[in-house]
Amino acid sequence: MLDFTYYNPAKIIFGKESENNVAQYIIPYGKRVLLHYGQGSVKKSGLYDRVVKNLKENGIYFTELGGVKPNPRLSLVREGIEICKKEKVEFILAVGGGSVIDSAKAIAVGVENDRDIWDFFEDRTIAIEKALPIGVILTIAAAGSETSTSSVITNDTNGLKRGISSVAYIPKFAILNPQLTCTLSPYQTACGCVDMVAHMFERYFCNVDNVDYTDRMIEVAIGCVIDNSVKALEDPNDYNVRAEIMWAGTQAHNNILGVGRVWDGGCHQIEHELSGMFDITHGEGLAIVIPAWMKYVSKKKNDKFLQLAKKSFFVDTTEEMIEKIENWYKNMGLKTRLSEIGITEDSFEKLADQCFINRDTIGNFYSVDRTDFINILNIAK
Amino acid sequence: MLDFTYYNPAKIIFGKESENNVAQYIIPYGKRVLLHYGQGSVKKSGLYDRVVKNLKENGIYFTELGGVKPNPRLSLVREGIEICKKEKVEFILAVGGGSVIDSAKAIAVGVENDRDIWDFFEDRTIAIEKALPIGVILTIAAAGSETSTSSVITNDTNGLKRGISSVAYIPKFAILNPQLTCTLSPYQTACGCVDMVAHMFERYFCNVDNVDYTDRMIEVAIGCVIDNSVKALEDPNDYNVRAEIMWAGTQAHNNILGVGRVWDGGCHQIEHELSGMFDITHGEGLAIVIPAWMKYVSKKKNDKFLQLAKKSFFVDTTEEMIEKIENWYKNMGLKTRLSEIGITEDSFEKLADQCFINRDTIGNFYSVDRTDFINILNIAK
Repeated sequence: MLDFTYYNPAKIIFGKESENNVAQYIIPYGKRVLLHYGQGSVKKSGLYDRVVKNLKENGIYFTELGGVKPNPRLSLVREGIEICKKEKVEFILAVGGGSVIDSAKAIAVGVENDRDIWDFFEDRTIAIEKALPIGVILTIAAAGSETSTSSVITNDTNGLKRGISSVAYIPKFAILNPQLTCTLSPYQTACGCVDMVAHMFERYFCNVDNVDYTDRMIEVAIGCVIDNSVKALEDPNDYNVRAEIMWAGTQAHNNILGVGRVWDGGCHQIEHELSGMFDITHGEGLAIVIPAWMKYVSKKKNDKFLQLAKKSFFVDTTEEMIEKIENWYKNMGLKTRLSEIGITEDSFEKLADQCFINRDTIGNFYSVDRTDFINILNIAK
Repeated sequence: MLDFTYYNPAKIIFGKESENNVAQYIIPYGKRVLLHYGQGSVKKSGLYDRVVKNLKENGIYFTELGGVKPNPRLSLVREGIEICKKEKVEFILAVGGGSVIDSAKAIAVGVENDRDIWDFFEDRTIAIEKALPIGVILTIAAAGSETSTSSVITNDTNGLKRGISSVAYIPKFAILNPQLTCTLSPYQTACGCVDMVAHMFERYFCNVDNVDYTDRMIEVAIGCVIDNSVKALEDPNDYNVRAEIMWAGTQAHNNILGVGRVWDGGCHQIEHELSGMFDITHGEGLAIVIPAWMKYVSKKKNDKFLQLAKKSFFVDTTEEMIEKIENWYKNMGLKTRLSEIGITEDSFEKLADQCFINRDTIGNFYSVDRTDFINILNIAK
């Protein structure tokens, strides 16, 4: 086990109707708020109205910025930074899924730091020490951004999708009401479950030995999400199933499952190139990349795959495990090949160019270089 | 799953020699410190000297209060409160195990609140809103107090052992260096592992359904501690084994395994009566109480026991599981009957009197009343 520091001061308020008192959690940080959300589903569902009512009743002034898209855009982040500065915003309330939260985090960093916000994404060695405080009402169980140190943004001028990491913008609170996820489409539900299990896989695949406690945790967490994803698709309104998934999604990325080890990250980085260039849904991209990455990397080093196969999927070979994982994706209605979503071999070189602009390899369990990257895409095609 | 709030802002600094820079974590809170510790093992080991050197090098003024015993005493807590007030202490540094940390927490509450400190222990309905900030250098992996909301103190005027719970005194930081636990005796190691597994059992036994994620987590966590306890007794100096145990001990009581459910607590409360009256070691008391409680309660409601038997102990009956648990205790050199530690039936009525002074039952999975309490002690005798 490696030395580590773990610090996650997000207050989690989990349960039914927990969003209805959001103002009380904001007030300690100020009364001038940016209300940040996506493309309107919060208005259709009535969530927007309930939040606005609660803010108004508590004397909170707010300005708003909707329109966050999946693969959240740098241009909207820049707009948010300007609004916050002009309106002297003290707190950002993100109402949505991982894209909205990631966008809010980037705005929070931009407001409190003089450099151009994209600098931090281009050069991850620049320390991020401060950010506006943010809070979250989560509507999609998937990214785990509600208590994570991550933010991933797509630069809409060049298609690059890049991430930052800092404890400075871990949300002050995350309101998790599983009821809000009952209206997610089967596709959104599936993509969310793929993403959270990907966060578990990426932590599991590490070269650090003697991480038994977290290995065992991840093994059962994966099984729990897969089991509940099947149930959620059968009965979307089962609160308890939605609750299991929502809590697992948060745990998958608050790094309690990643302590004392170096997480891999390769699959996420390959997928970021795909969704950066083609604007596909992150979870769907992962369902294509992960089996290909597993097939390729397990040929180089199989031990950890075998352990996962036995402990989490109850099969004896990596091949059987990968088949089970692919079938899980397919049974949820997801595509598992690039050709199925219209991405062809023509783009592989350009994807590789973008991926390796300022780095030679990606991933820590197995270092994927340019050749590996192309090989993995060829398996996925 | 029940609604819940989870908030644990303790910063964990985990790893080799992590105690040597303790001052940097204290300074944000002040430069006047109470150094609180136990009965001298920290001096013998050289830890005290290293801490003092680091405090002095960083210009931190400190006053000290050693002498905390297992089952920490109210009288020493009162002494600590007086010292802190007189010396205008801004921060308490607890160097030791659960007893030292619990004592530090009680002092921290006493300094910042006008009521008599024992009032909070006698009446758990009194909210604890504030406390001096505290930090921890942990030397015994056991109680989980280093990041928990709990403090348990024994009133040395009447032998009552009672607990409080509040987020107000969750340590600001917890320094966890597994190296410091390599010198623990086999007995201390065993008692520590019993305590942390007891924290897992007590969370596991709940009447709330649909808590799959945390159930699965607890099941593997228990197995991990048991496996590593055996290894630690074989080779006390195996850093990785000590690291697994230390991390498990913290996780066992930071309540990440207890969310969305009501934990039982019955075994701990029965044991508190024993150690309050007879000053036995908490872990040893638990090794006696838990099998008796399990034998008694599983006759009333067996489902959750059977689930644990299958998932965590890989046996088909509760009886086989209890036998495995008892054998684990015995193989670590612990006693599993009251008679083996000199506690006889004569004291059962008095123990019951003390336990039920201002309550009719203890425990939430199964409500233990006075009759049950005596019955359980009779099984344990």
